[in-house]
Amino acid sequence: MKNFNQTAHQIVIATRGRGLYEFTRQVMDQLGATGLQTGLATLFVQHTSASLLIQENADPEVRRDLDRFFARLAPDGDALLGHTAEGPDDMPAHIRSALTAVNLSIPIAHGKLVLGTWQGIYLWEHRVDPHTRQIHAHFFGE
Amino acid sequence: MKNFNQTAHQIVIATRGRGLYEFTRQVMDQLGATGLQTGLATLFVQHTSASLLIQENADPEVRRDLDRFFARLAPDGDALLGHTAEGPDDMPAHIRSALTAVNLSIPIAHGKLVLGTWQGIYLWEHRVDPHTRQIHAHFFGE
Amino acid sequence: MKNFNQTAHQIVIATRGRGLYEFTRQVMDQLGATGLQTGLATLFVQHTSASLLIQENADPEVRRDLDRFFARLAPDGDALLGHTAEGPDDMPAHIRSALTAVNLSIPIAHGKLVLGTWQGIYLWEHRVDPHTRQIHAHFFGE
Repeated sequence: MKNFNQTAHQIVIATRGRGLYEFTRQVMDQLGATGLQTGLATLFVQHTSASLLIQENADPEVRRDLDRFFARLAPDGDALLGHTAEGPDDMPAHIRSALTAVNLSIPIAHGKLVLGTWQGIYLWEHRVDPHTRQIHAHFFGE
Repeated sequence: MKNFNQTAHQIVIATRGRGLYEFTRQVMDQLGATGLQTGLATLFVQHTSASLLIQENADPEVRRDLDRFFARLAPDGDALLGHTAEGPDDMPAHIRSALTAVNLSIPIAHGKLVLGTWQGIYLWEHRVDPHTRQIHAHFFGE
Repeated sequence: MKNFNQTAHQIVIATRGRGLYEFTRQVMDQLGATGLQTGLATLFVQHTSASLLIQENADPEVRRDLDRFFARLAPDGDALLGHTAEGPDDMPAHIRSALTAVNLSIPIAHGKLVLGTWQGIYLWEHRVDPHTRQIHAHFFGE
């Protein structure tokens, strides 16, 4: 019989407004503390105007380009949109959330996340103003 | 040794055509019946022209705006597209599916899904005509 | 007590450049070899310029249309973008990755993935040149 186990953690990220915030290290550290060698890590962001992204962690210009692209695709104050009561960036934030991911599942092998060489884990804040964002992390394995 | 368990359920949603259909309550009720306190819920939609979405469940205008946005981004009858045999809304439905999610992974804590205050779980029907949609729900934990 | 087990596999796909590469059969065969009857399969692509997609496996025109759509949405050589050192298709590849998925979670029932009739599993190569792509597959269940 295998000796499976699971643990849950809360990750809190205070954003300074729209942009990508890497938290790969926090997930790695939490995983290391569990002692799990093989299994599955699940990250879930508990908001509808922020998302989770795995992207290149080398050139910061990549993150600026992602922002430029999404600003063109779903611009703030878009006349098409009717949900404007919470500000011109609120509905575009919901759209960005729908186009990206609220959850990530990353296998664990040899005690580590199986991230590729250039992959980092990011919270993507879609609102212009700073927010405090909650991410639930679930680790399972043996 | 932990007392892990898993169960599977089928969720069937009869849509009235394109739009968002909330089924948070069904998932919550199925989870409640399992008695699991900590673990992982996985939802998987078994179609290529519908998807799963976690979005704001407060103002219904948010869902209308999501529809407006995707109708502009991937319009029905788009002259760019060659796969037209199944109707002008079929290939745009596949594109909407590719841009969103077919599966969701939501951790379970204290016997509940760890959804944020405003998060609801939706089936997103991308076809114009009504369809019967199948979602497989898998719960695992202890 | 349940008899849970887990296994991990590496799937390697040599692409011939941009496009969709189906590998449903490889995942099915690996799952079959595990003997698992009920559980969860997780696929994770270890790159930031390729993604995973579940799409229609019938008409190949669907895949061509997906490529046409994304070529219009995030064109190579887009003047908006600043990260150009790795070629005109590199930043668009990162954008395509952000708009799609790096991981898929597919429940297992009766010894099989619960894929719908028309659903196939694809690696989506976003770069123009051929690449060797790594996918980590994790199976868990009983």
